[in-house]
Amino acid sequence: MNEFELIDKYFNWGSQHSDDLAVGDDCALINIHADTQIATSVDTLIEGVHFPIDSASADIAHKALTVNLSDLAAMGATPLYFTLALTLPNIDEQWLEGFSSALKALAKKYDIQLVGGDTTKGTLSITINATGSIEKKPALLRSGAQVGDSVFVSNTLGGAALAWQKIQIGQTPSADLLNFFNRPEPQVALGQALLDVAHSCIDISDGLQQDLSHILTRSKVGASIDLKALPISDEVAQYIADTGNWCVALAGGDDYELCFTVPKSNLDAIKAIEKALGVTLTKIGIIIDDKDLKIEGLNKPCQAYQHF
Amino acid sequence: MNEFELIDKYFNWGSQHSDDLAVGDDCALINIHADTQIATSVDTLIEGVHFPIDSASADIAHKALTVNLSDLAAMGATPLYFTLALTLPNIDEQWLEGFSSALKALAKKYDIQLVGGDTTKGTLSITINATGSIEKKPALLRSGAQVGDSVFVSNTLGGAALAWQKIQIGQTPSADLLNFFNRPEPQVALGQALLDVAHSCIDISDGLQQDLSHILTRSKVGASIDLKALPISDEVAQYIADTGNWCVALAGGDDYELCFTVPKSNLDAIKAIEKALGVTLTKIGIIIDDKDLKIEGLNKPCQAYQHF
Repeated sequence: MNEFELIDKYFNWGSQHSDDLAVGDDCALINIHADTQIATSVDTLIEGVHFPIDSASADIAHKALTVNLSDLAAMGATPLYFTLALTLPNIDEQWLEGFSSALKALAKKYDIQLVGGDTTKGTLSITINATGSIEKKPALLRSGAQVGDSVFVSNTLGGAALAWQKIQIGQTPSADLLNFFNRPEPQVALGQALLDVAHSCIDISDGLQQDLSHILTRSKVGASIDLKALPISDEVAQYIADTGNWCVALAGGDDYELCFTVPKSNLDAIKAIEKALGVTLTKIGIIIDDKDLKIEGLNKPCQAYQHF
Repeated sequence: MNEFELIDKYFNWGSQHSDDLAVGDDCALINIHADTQIATSVDTLIEGVHFPIDSASADIAHKALTVNLSDLAAMGATPLYFTLALTLPNIDEQWLEGFSSALKALAKKYDIQLVGGDTTKGTLSITINATGSIEKKPALLRSGAQVGDSVFVSNTLGGAALAWQKIQIGQTPSADLLNFFNRPEPQVALGQALLDVAHSCIDISDGLQQDLSHILTRSKVGASIDLKALPISDEVAQYIADTGNWCVALAGGDDYELCFTVPKSNLDAIKAIEKALGVTLTKIGIIIDDKDLKIEGLNKPCQAYQHF
């Protein structure tokens, strides 16, 4: 099977494409109607770095698209299209079948179209570039936090990092923990709902401590966070009770939840969004004038996730 | 140096950005004014597969952006912006300095803006996703060739493939040959000039034989090509005279020239474009009704470039 046959067999989901998207020439063509602001994000996942060797191809595909959808979500963007650069050590049809099915399922769920790609031979690696539109301006940015805003996070933190930690020391995480690691859901609807409500937003891919710090730096403010308020699952809570190690929830990364700040006047809207979307939104602290990130209850700062 | 410092030091070319491009949040934001058709292309280069191990980082950067600009050129698109996913085995500041300088120089030359990226640790690999706009519709497509069209290619073929072939058997190619391999120029201005002139177009990245075949398949036509008419450099001509191996020019790939088809009524326009752009455009054959690619003078078809 050559590259063209591979693409045709596994990634030609022709019927899904609208009239505004065309695939198959040197470039994909996309029609943008009227003045639009588009948001674009790129992320690479590499075997052995971002997921364990021999991970299920369906899990890899799910995560590779999710991390990019999560970036769109953090800006309140509506997903439009994505490209896929797939590096494979060899052609394994069973692997490709699992990969393409999971990718297609997630793409369908979030209504985002695969418009183009490249396949190359090498160490397993997946780079997705996802693009969305911002329907209501302005976009959610990191730079809008204001003193007095409440700091929120969606759902729970630390599950994925605890799973990864267990895998790396040869333990088998529970199915629930593995689900946090392998099947995170991007908070696309939440991001869009926050467009008129939040002052600032970021997705938690590198851990709350590091990602919230980006908001603080860009907004030129500080924050005071209450460790006890962090939303964590029962298993993560048990792990922290046993070890005293809060860093799994604060700095583990890979959560793909949203961290955002909300002015007092919009706190009622947060309750309405929580109800409408069936998502849990927890207030974990407040934006302050002092330019530090204070974490009440933490003895020493966690080591932030290092890419190198 | 962490990921954020790395990006800030080597890839934050702030002053180059217009008001319509913003970098630094979860996504880059791009304003599209009025109805626009955008074209997007993604290509990955991997060390040891697409370029030799220990290649100069400046050459790698040049080529990684060129292969994508070449795809934009093939559709007549005007470059707008690109994202960079860079996988590095380690942080080597000298390497990064060479890479970022060459990337910036080429981006400036073709007026395309770096809007976002991701850096990860692993085998050296570069994925660029480049996006352009089509100013005049329709775009140049592979599907428009018509019986009676003349088939053209720009400049010369085979130089890059001959250089790569020599490198792989331990020989040192001449400076001229290496230049074809390391510093191809994307035919961006030519692609735009062909928008009203050519019926179909493709860039020659996988070799003329394979790429022209894509035009023929999509256009449901055939072509008759005259081997003797192929534009080749003196060194490639000498190699073919010595070996009788035309495949270096026909199927070697990595040329990044354009192959396009032109109706009789526009042949004068081709002469005008040649003069205006200082590019050599050579007629190599004609589109025919019979659905084959006939190469006059070739004894047996060349093995096409295989990605796997």
